[in-house]
Amino acid sequence: MDFFDLVNKRRSVRKFSNETIPEEVVIKALKASLLAANSSNLQPWEFYWVKNKNNKNDLIKACFSQNAAKTAQELIVAVSRIDTWKRNRNLILENYKKKGNLIPVVEKYYNKLIPLSYVHDRIGLLGIMKKILSFFISIVGFFRPVPRGPIFRHDVFEIVTKTTALACQNFMMALVAQGYDSCPMEGFDQKRVKNILKLNSKSHIVMVIGVGKADPNGIYGERFRIDNDLVIKII
Amino acid sequence: MDFFDLVNKRRSVRKFSNETIPEEVVIKALKASLLAANSSNLQPWEFYWVKNKNNKNDLIKACFSQNAAKTAQELIVAVSRIDTWKRNRNLILENYKKKGNLIPVVEKYYNKLIPLSYVHDRIGLLGIMKKILSFFISIVGFFRPVPRGPIFRHDVFEIVTKTTALACQNFMMALVAQGYDSCPMEGFDQKRVKNILKLNSKSHIVMVIGVGKADPNGIYGERFRIDNDLVIKII
Repeated sequence: MDFFDLVNKRRSVRKFSNETIPEEVVIKALKASLLAANSSNLQPWEFYWVKNKNNKNDLIKACFSQNAAKTAQELIVAVSRIDTWKRNRNLILENYKKKGNLIPVVEKYYNKLIPLSYVHDRIGLLGIMKKILSFFISIVGFFRPVPRGPIFRHDVFEIVTKTTALACQNFMMALVAQGYDSCPMEGFDQKRVKNILKLNSKSHIVMVIGVGKADPNGIYGERFRIDNDLVIKII
Repeated sequence: MDFFDLVNKRRSVRKFSNETIPEEVVIKALKASLLAANSSNLQPWEFYWVKNKNNKNDLIKACFSQNAAKTAQELIVAVSRIDTWKRNRNLILENYKKKGNLIPVVEKYYNKLIPLSYVHDRIGLLGIMKKILSFFISIVGFFRPVPRGPIFRHDVFEIVTKTTALACQNFMMALVAQGYDSCPMEGFDQKRVKNILKLNSKSHIVMVIGVGKADPNGIYGERFRIDNDLVIKII
């Protein structure tokens, strides 16, 4: 199917049919999601396929037992993390070295600039120090362009969540491409979902995605978008 | 082309060729991006196509004159906003009314719950009040699932940026589907880009996307992903 037909076909399905979804369809969609664009190639995402019956029941409850979760054949939780950058950065550098093309500018980027962006602490002291530093940088910023962040822990979370969302869109599109449907959910108890996934405070639940085949009444009404002119601007 | 071929083909291009890109290709990709999944259908995104020569030059400089910006035929800035929800919510409700299917649960959702999530002030007093409220909610949370956010202004920014990223992935894929390439950039001077776009503090620059045809040397090396097993977990 043409990409634009897929885009038109993808809708958030609130009720799934009883038809099961083959494992390989989900796996193929997950693999496609990991090929999305991502920030500095640091791949700060994780995808939890919640299959265990007890876990799945708990997850449904944590999603307030909404239809899209209750009727989903499979549930995937997309997670963003601010603490995997170091491991992933090392793997990236190893790969460069293995291929014999680790040039100084890349090494400096990953060893000097990336830690400056991603390093953080729970209390936020480093954030305050970065904020003070950014004040001085902003003076330079009067004269030339300067980087302005990320400063606080929540700035880093915005970056990793942004990147994980890119992967999520690929995931949902990959399901449509294989004839299946999805519903991305943001209505859930973040703390309970984290408990099910045994995650700590260095992770955010980006979305819970229900997966299956749409029930004939699974889409609640026609798609509505505000006028394109309100959001596409040519300047 | 098959969706999975497109996924494989999409790479971040750091250098574009001299070949121009037809207007209708960009427009088609922008329209596809607006059909992405999004949070509560509130469409908190904006896409600025920076065409004016002076604006474009300023934008290139604000992107630290990196190759992907300098050589791009076109530059698009994806923006997320925490202040358009009210207008968009009203348009959504109007549309429901026009179609005669505004059921009470939808009206309550958009008129009661959404404002509770999205309302914020510059100083953050509402955030602190919500934090206090969330403490009491978290007591209820011992017994049953409860919503835990968004609380602070930056939580709302994470939501709108997340949604805008979903649209960005569609945009980049829509370009590949039409035989063109892109480079999503996060390295820019946020303040200067906002000045060019005349945006206020209620918006974040999600990414600047360079668009064109890849130069033969436009892709810097083979794609590298860490082992899937590190990020796909079955529980």
